[in-house]
Amino acid sequence: MNPERPAKPGPTTKPHRKNLFASRMAKTPKSFIREILKVTDDPRIISFAGGLPNPDLIDAAGIADAAGRVLAAEGRKALQYSTTEGYLPLRTWIAERYRKRLGMAVSPCEILITNGSQQCLDLIGKVFLNAGDPIAIERPGYLGAIQAFSLYEPVFCPITLQDDGPDPAMLAEVLERHNPKFFYGIPNSQNPTGITYTGERRKEIADVMQKTGTFFIEDDAYGELNFTGRSPQSFRQLLPATTLITGSFSKILAPGMRLGWVVAPVEVMEQLVIAKQASDLHSNFLSQRIAYEYLSHTDIDSHIHRIQQAYRHQCDLMQAEIKKTFPASVRYTRPEGGMFLWLTLPDGISANEVFDAAIKEEVAVLPGTPFYIDGGGNSTLRINFSNAPDTMICEGIARLVRVIRKLGK
Amino acid sequence: MNPERPAKPGPTTKPHRKNLFASRMAKTPKSFIREILKVTDDPRIISFAGGLPNPDLIDAAGIADAAGRVLAAEGRKALQYSTTEGYLPLRTWIAERYRKRLGMAVSPCEILITNGSQQCLDLIGKVFLNAGDPIAIERPGYLGAIQAFSLYEPVFCPITLQDDGPDPAMLAEVLERHNPKFFYGIPNSQNPTGITYTGERRKEIADVMQKTGTFFIEDDAYGELNFTGRSPQSFRQLLPATTLITGSFSKILAPGMRLGWVVAPVEVMEQLVIAKQASDLHSNFLSQRIAYEYLSHTDIDSHIHRIQQAYRHQCDLMQAEIKKTFPASVRYTRPEGGMFLWLTLPDGISANEVFDAAIKEEVAVLPGTPFYIDGGGNSTLRINFSNAPDTMICEGIARLVRVIRKLGK
Repeated sequence: MNPERPAKPGPTTKPHRKNLFASRMAKTPKSFIREILKVTDDPRIISFAGGLPNPDLIDAAGIADAAGRVLAAEGRKALQYSTTEGYLPLRTWIAERYRKRLGMAVSPCEILITNGSQQCLDLIGKVFLNAGDPIAIERPGYLGAIQAFSLYEPVFCPITLQDDGPDPAMLAEVLERHNPKFFYGIPNSQNPTGITYTGERRKEIADVMQKTGTFFIEDDAYGELNFTGRSPQSFRQLLPATTLITGSFSKILAPGMRLGWVVAPVEVMEQLVIAKQASDLHSNFLSQRIAYEYLSHTDIDSHIHRIQQAYRHQCDLMQAEIKKTFPASVRYTRPEGGMFLWLTLPDGISANEVFDAAIKEEVAVLPGTPFYIDGGGNSTLRINFSNAPDTMICEGIARLVRVIRKLGK
Repeated sequence: MNPERPAKPGPTTKPHRKNLFASRMAKTPKSFIREILKVTDDPRIISFAGGLPNPDLIDAAGIADAAGRVLAAEGRKALQYSTTEGYLPLRTWIAERYRKRLGMAVSPCEILITNGSQQCLDLIGKVFLNAGDPIAIERPGYLGAIQAFSLYEPVFCPITLQDDGPDPAMLAEVLERHNPKFFYGIPNSQNPTGITYTGERRKEIADVMQKTGTFFIEDDAYGELNFTGRSPQSFRQLLPATTLITGSFSKILAPGMRLGWVVAPVEVMEQLVIAKQASDLHSNFLSQRIAYEYLSHTDIDSHIHRIQQAYRHQCDLMQAEIKKTFPASVRYTRPEGGMFLWLTLPDGISANEVFDAAIKEEVAVLPGTPFYIDGGGNSTLRINFSNAPDTMICEGIARLVRVIRKLGK
């Protein structure tokens, strides 16, 4: 480094200080999914472990046309810095979509464009959470949310997810006892279970939460992917002053553009905008312009209907194969949307063992344990139906049943 | 809301809990720049307040061609989810650029693609800072960094920026007394002052930091914009084990694509990748593919040379107008790169007064006070030369001198 002082120990030899990293880093679970995806890079492996949309349902040609038009007409503007809140016509489009789909009034000034809905969770953590603050979350709960919130060192209070939605009595007790900053949940086609809260359960949960004024963070990544075409009520329609919604273009447009949004009451939005600006100034403006151009020249209802029908078919096929071949002791959810089935194996079969044995059979599944913030779920598996073609679904399920029958003995 | 129970107070009437928001939000300075930019939206105002690149130097046609090729050839892949670390060919391009430009060996696995270099600051805050941790920062220091780090509630230790770079004696004392987690600085064409550390001062600073093993966060947003074509040594060449570099495509390609990167030793990179994944999974993949396609089909050296020459001209013109018209008591920096001049007014003239009076004359400048974490800088102004055409530079400076002469009386 410095030839004049060769005797001095170089900087590479000096050990770093103790506690170099922030304590939050020790509290963030290493992404099991991430580790698994490395294993499943092998093209011989049929993967039900991830959560990718079917690439055939990404309208690359339509997006290419939109990109061409934006760059030809207003290239330099679309490539310049822009506002933190996001492109106003795109925010207006989102607001109008809520009106049309749910009959729900949302103002564009209640909408902030983010880098996919994952960033909403980071911003919400930033804005709401001091270390040690309690928050309530479904059990099992979305791993991406557990990771995002963990960086703000909250205390997680798990609320059991039943077939109809979260357990209202348990939620009431947690609200009473711990006064959490918010309850985070996915009412539509929950990740990992595929469960959609019933209308009745939504009202029960809203009643419980209204008593304490606790915020509900409604993660609605899958609301547009309901195969039945139903659009269940948003919690914002039940708890308008205390609901935030996180939305995503990843499932209806394209995940690689990293576009999502958060809907929040104005006094929360002010804080979210400050946090967003400090975090990365604003979301990719070129992609916002392309997305808006695409959405305003496409029959988006038809496009979404096509995605719904394709996923319904893939989900039905996977369920049919499971019903036909799996031991009756394996239970599984019947989603009405989304991308995932949730399997519960008979007691005594460990999902981690299934994972290891399945990789040898060249099929990948996701053990359910990382979705349980307080341990448990040892016999649960999440399997994705959106990303594999029909033949792969049949072949993958056939491989999986061999593994389960072998381990069941 | 619920017609069956009209007597019950609706959720909008319930006051929110005290301390709804995290304490970090109260510590984050409201962006003065943001507020100012609202004022300067008026098209009659000549704005030297922002920090936008000259739109004429954004190669929209070249980027449009690259986008067309990417979307035609591999549209669905470019629009799908991707890896947290970023597109490997783009990371390899960045590594190769460091080798070519600085003779510095960087491995692609030491590079993470981010949403502009602003996100690097957020991720570095996440990974390194517990509330109350001391960090050192130049005085005056970059406002975006002050905002990003403030969310992690550190204690800022300002280090006076002299004409040659930060004061080494002051830094030594701060390292000794407070043991900060890192020192954050912009060695090339610093924001706000335009100062470039001399080679001698870099060595002095590195010597001081090597003794304590303190990390240096080298923000290098402007390294490619040195008008002289010089590429001063990176601190990573002086302190390889303890330097992080943040880089940006915003100044050489296009800010609207929000692409930056951080270079870090592998053990720090592991933590940054976990933080990035939790924050937003990965950066916009479509933009990464377009940027790589563009960079590998463009003579980027010529493009950057064109930007350097244009900004040199704009900077020279602004300085010439200042020299010709301003009272001799106004001092200003002579940047060799970047986008900003830094003015120090005679004692007794307040930059905030200049701002208010200048808006009335329809020219916007940025008072220097928000760059001083501990107060001060009342007579300083940052003015941007990159975003205005020649006639606007001359007219804007003419308006500004009227304001200063009036207030100087």
